Amino acid sequence: MTKDRRLTSQSEDFAAWYTEVVQAAGLVDYSPVRGCMVIKPYGYAIWELMQSALDGLFKATGHQNAYFPLFLPQSALDREAEHVEGFAPQTAVVTHAGGEELEEPLVVRPTSEAVIWPVVANWIQSYRDLPVLLNQWANVVRWELRTRPFLRTTEFLWQEGHTAHAIAEEAREEARRMLAVYREFMEEWMAMPVVTGEKTPSERFAGAERTFACEALMKDNKALQAGTSHDLGQNFARAFEVQYQTEEGRHEFVWNTSWGVSTRLIGGLIMTHGDDQGLSLPPRLAPYQLVIVPIWKSDEQRQSVLEKAELLRAGLAGGVRVHIDDRENMTPGAKYFDWERRGVPLRMEVGPRDVEKSQVVLVSRTASAEDRKRFVGDAEALATIPEMLIDLQAGVRREAERRRAENSVRGLADYGEFKARMEGSGGFVYAGWCGDERCEQKVKQDTKATIRVLPDPEFRSEEPPERCLCCGESADHEALWAKAY
Amino acid sequence: MTKDRRLTSQSEDFAAWYTEVVQAAGLVDYSPVRGCMVIKPYGYAIWELMQSALDGLFKATGHQNAYFPLFLPQSALDREAEHVEGFAPQTAVVTHAGGEELEEPLVVRPTSEAVIWPVVANWIQSYRDLPVLLNQWANVVRWELRTRPFLRTTEFLWQEGHTAHAIAEEAREEARRMLAVYREFMEEWMAMPVVTGEKTPSERFAGAERTFACEALMKDNKALQAGTSHDLGQNFARAFEVQYQTEEGRHEFVWNTSWGVSTRLIGGLIMTHGDDQGLSLPPRLAPYQLVIVPIWKSDEQRQSVLEKAELLRAGLAGGVRVHIDDRENMTPGAKYFDWERRGVPLRMEVGPRDVEKSQVVLVSRTASAEDRKRFVGDAEALATIPEMLIDLQAGVRREAERRRAENSVRGLADYGEFKARMEGSGGFVYAGWCGDERCEQKVKQDTKATIRVLPDPEFRSEEPPERCLCCGESADHEALWAKAY
Repeated sequence: MTKDRRLTSQSEDFAAWYTEVVQAAGLVDYSPVRGCMVIKPYGYAIWELMQSALDGLFKATGHQNAYFPLFLPQSALDREAEHVEGFAPQTAVVTHAGGEELEEPLVVRPTSEAVIWPVVANWIQSYRDLPVLLNQWANVVRWELRTRPFLRTTEFLWQEGHTAHAIAEEAREEARRMLAVYREFMEEWMAMPVVTGEKTPSERFAGAERTFACEALMKDNKALQAGTSHDLGQNFARAFEVQYQTEEGRHEFVWNTSWGVSTRLIGGLIMTHGDDQGLSLPPRLAPYQLVIVPIWKSDEQRQSVLEKAELLRAGLAGGVRVHIDDRENMTPGAKYFDWERRGVPLRMEVGPRDVEKSQVVLVSRTASAEDRKRFVGDAEALATIPEMLIDLQAGVRREAERRRAENSVRGLADYGEFKARMEGSGGFVYAGWCGDERCEQKVKQDTKATIRVLPDPEFRSEEPPERCLCCGESADHEALWAKAY
Repeated sequence: MTKDRRLTSQSEDFAAWYTEVVQAAGLVDYSPVRGCMVIKPYGYAIWELMQSALDGLFKATGHQNAYFPLFLPQSALDREAEHVEGFAPQTAVVTHAGGEELEEPLVVRPTSEAVIWPVVANWIQSYRDLPVLLNQWANVVRWELRTRPFLRTTEFLWQEGHTAHAIAEEAREEARRMLAVYREFMEEWMAMPVVTGEKTPSERFAGAERTFACEALMKDNKALQAGTSHDLGQNFARAFEVQYQTEEGRHEFVWNTSWGVSTRLIGGLIMTHGDDQGLSLPPRLAPYQLVIVPIWKSDEQRQSVLEKAELLRAGLAGGVRVHIDDRENMTPGAKYFDWERRGVPLRMEVGPRDVEKSQVVLVSRTASAEDRKRFVGDAEALATIPEMLIDLQAGVRREAERRRAENSVRGLADYGEFKARMEGSGGFVYAGWCGDERCEQKVKQDTKATIRVLPDPEFRSEEPPERCLCCGESADHEALWAKAY
């Protein structure tokens, strides 16, 4: 693909658009190992911004980072029955090391519950050692048949929180607290509205008592599970003998949680805000919030516009991530095209006339066509750009909320209407569910739609649905249905 | 080991002291997988401070972070002959994944040259795409027979820089620049003086043209290789066909470098500053620079000392990492002991009398006995603690420099004196070398000492040594000899 080829449009083929945009925007490259992606500097810079924000939120809620090994003995994975059943088919296994066959094969972690709890069990003696609130930033490996950059890769980067508590309610609260932290991050930083709620038993994390999730609606009207938080009950505590002594001297098993988000979030960001021109980044997660494109013909002009660009950069440096694109051998137009494709929220053009007039041209990535291009005096630019970025952040969030509202329905007449919708536009459908897994399965077979979550109260309909979408029996729950990644 | 057991003293058994202190200070734990360590929150917090400082230095020198896969096909590793010879015996190999045997085994990266260059080759067309200046924070695996926490573990965390340049001199300069960055970090942050220089051919990185290193002297008078930077010439460019088109239209191979430091640095930090009381952290890398220990008997006292502690913490929060140790069921003395063991640079004691008198007690981890404990008024404490930390940083560095000077010798009379020294106190010895690998090997067999580096000019003796330490022939180089980790 040449750099200035147009992308396939989203309406024509969303999957092709996605595959093209992740490469054209310089986010990823493929690697010689099937299903493993290379995260290029521009993509990794987005991940670093995500990490920094999430890490701050985790620490503010009392969590500490640690690091546990990449490998676990097969026998450790085997100790929690549901967990091994869920993960064993996806593992990569080291059988040889140091030139010899290993006595016991080592599994590359697909998640770290079975790595962490056998060790941390020794850190916990009494109730005074609880809660244990850990997080780790790490790579994990799950062997996937069909992979797509960010959305599903064999190796991916993530954070995984792991906590232990003295009582069940505290663990439940922790799982809920971290779900709320994820929601805050997704809405405030990613500008990606989510529906929170609980997964049905068939969609639970392998080994969890309850799984909570954040679900977002992508621009192709498919849902993306963007983060999950698990109340693990005492399943892992029993499997790995994680006990503590109570104040009264009794020995009890702890209550655990785990929760994670991954580089998949970058996929969510792309499919929430991207358009036919390419990526569109909310300012809080944009590696460059403002790109200055200097325009010159003569060497003399070159010097004066670059000097002005540098002054403006320095003036904004405290609060704004600025990049001056001074590449030679590239027209200003080609640069505009490039930075639009890379989703930079704000572009500043500085030409010789702008130097004379003490002004700049500001162009926003997302404003409407008539309002895109503005001439602004230098002083005003310095004063207002930080505010403009805040407004742009709010704007892309409002737009994402508008789009989600437009593509969410409640109170469909019957199952036929639901099937028609899933064959057509897709989107979020709130409808009743009897609680029977067979109905879940039938809907999935008929339409590929699944229950994303049983939504939390604030997302539920004012009039709770009375009947199951599928069987028409009395509804136990309101469910959010959608086709999903 | 109980929490308040005394450590084995350094003079009695340094290796035992090290093994005890890494656990007693809460830095690491062992894992069920041989040779893999768990980095506990307190140890990981040190690593985060190191990462943050280094990452800033890398970005300030124009490098961008990226992420490349954990796995590489065996065939990729095989493409650079010396490289595979050096690393193949140490690799961990995935042979099965997703429940099936793989067609081609995958190697878990021991370092990433062979992962990165086949991919990045495609990012480089012309001279305008150069230099490529990449860094990655990652885990790597090298199967080691004898492992010790931080110093040599099967899996370890590190950063690896990888760069490509149009001309040989630029690559050489880059390798040198990053060596200087490492030295700056080790001296300014770690307060650990290092000798820089070039490795002899027998100690080069597998596949490098030249390897440069930073060598530090530990408290047991053994050397620690703390960081290396490699001028790779065109070896990897040829193996992986990394070419660019020159301004004149010719196709040329690029010139590469790579450079890395790892969690091994934490081992260096421990063995540079630790003492029989435990860890001793330079303030710039201390997770807590100041710990406030509130002292109370009654509940009323408890409230007033905690209030005061909180006020002081808030007053210092902008510039100092403060922790209030309000643990119940632990005497102030036990807390002092604990934080000394963990190496906290500055302790503040706040008791009921200190509340009355608007004063605090300040105790530094490293000041001499008569100067350790000072009564300071509240306002003065707030005003002077940031400065005190700067002074403490400078003090531990001076002490490390003094110790290194005391344990470095030049101009030994003959090989007999060298052997006696290596059997006795050890330390750094500057002496001549004829340039013959056989002398290097003989010295190693006789004394276990090796050439750490051929030191850079500023470290060399005023009078260059005339004779080879070992064979007595004319010396081609001055070499720094020591027993090493």
